[in-house]
Amino acid sequence: MVISEELRLDTEGHCHIIDISSRVAEAVRGSGLLSGTVTIFCPGSTGGLSTIEYESGALHDLERALDQIAPPDGDYRHHLRWGDDNGHSHVRSALIGPSLTVPFVEGALTLGTWQQIVFLDFDTRPRARRLVLQIMGE
Amino acid sequence: MVISEELRLDTEGHCHIIDISSRVAEAVRGSGLLSGTVTIFCPGSTGGLSTIEYESGALHDLERALDQIAPPDGDYRHHLRWGDDNGHSHVRSALIGPSLTVPFVEGALTLGTWQQIVFLDFDTRPRARRLVLQIMGE
Amino acid sequence: MVISEELRLDTEGHCHIIDISSRVAEAVRGSGLLSGTVTIFCPGSTGGLSTIEYESGALHDLERALDQIAPPDGDYRHHLRWGDDNGHSHVRSALIGPSLTVPFVEGALTLGTWQQIVFLDFDTRPRARRLVLQIMGE
Repeated sequence: MVISEELRLDTEGHCHIIDISSRVAEAVRGSGLLSGTVTIFCPGSTGGLSTIEYESGALHDLERALDQIAPPDGDYRHHLRWGDDNGHSHVRSALIGPSLTVPFVEGALTLGTWQQIVFLDFDTRPRARRLVLQIMGE
Repeated sequence: MVISEELRLDTEGHCHIIDISSRVAEAVRGSGLLSGTVTIFCPGSTGGLSTIEYESGALHDLERALDQIAPPDGDYRHHLRWGDDNGHSHVRSALIGPSLTVPFVEGALTLGTWQQIVFLDFDTRPRARRLVLQIMGE
Repeated sequence: MVISEELRLDTEGHCHIIDISSRVAEAVRGSGLLSGTVTIFCPGSTGGLSTIEYESGALHDLERALDQIAPPDGDYRHHLRWGDDNGHSHVRSALIGPSLTVPFVEGALTLGTWQQIVFLDFDTRPRARRLVLQIMGE
């Protein structure tokens, strides 16, 4: 069986990292499915999905690493195309990836104790985001 | 239900980034399934799958970031092993990842307007590639 | 159908990279399913899943690239929080990602000849790890 849900988020952009674990867990419980996977997908090319221990120190460390890989104040050819200022956002999104698949067993996500599902908004302005949750199983 | 498809591509290697969105969408439509996920998988250790806004500026920016993470002209121990010249290709593939799962709803991929599915060929020569599309749903 | 399996591993930490391909293939064969996907998931925020050509040169090259992105001896705010020494482990895990989905067809994983599924333990001590294998298909 397949259950399609949406998750709506207001973000601040600028590498805003949001813990969506409880909302994903709630959607899985609401599906009535006991065993399967949930695929969380960002329709858009300036966001990413991953997991991390959601505490301010680790979030800061991840952001600093991304600042080195794709600095916000770097020169990007994407800017020449559209007059945008979010070239680094596109690079980060392609590297982190727009999709995350998490198993659930007996109706519960198989996350570790100190592991949270996060949406990362790399864009350079606040965004109203819509994530797709595709819940598949039995 | 599970529908297995293949997608064949001729690439130029050297971080050739190819938009495969329309071919993936076509395979999903052809499956007759309405709701589920398609997993696109590269059988090989020098390719990667992700999404990006497919315009030349953003592609260039991504390639430049990868050039810094794993420079083509760097020293790689992999070269000592086989006399290969594609050590950087293996590093990039492991970082970007060989697999991408995209939901579809009412028969359509849930991509954003400016978001394309891309295959990245990091190898150092033209390749005839075969990607696996595993379409699952109902 | 959904079959849930676990895979237990003793690791050395410190970017220990372990080839789990044959154990994943065995679990898929044991499931009795012929076509579908296996999602390998690490419940924990200091491990990662990917694929690579499993030879010591390529493993060394990947580790060196990760040493530049998130050096083990760098300053991390995560250390201030808990007195931990594994800030770089969290950054690497979030970048590589905790989840990998691999298709199987006619009971066999669709890996390339020189491509292995690897678990990467980024933590700073030996760990007894448990990975979740969610096998879905028909």
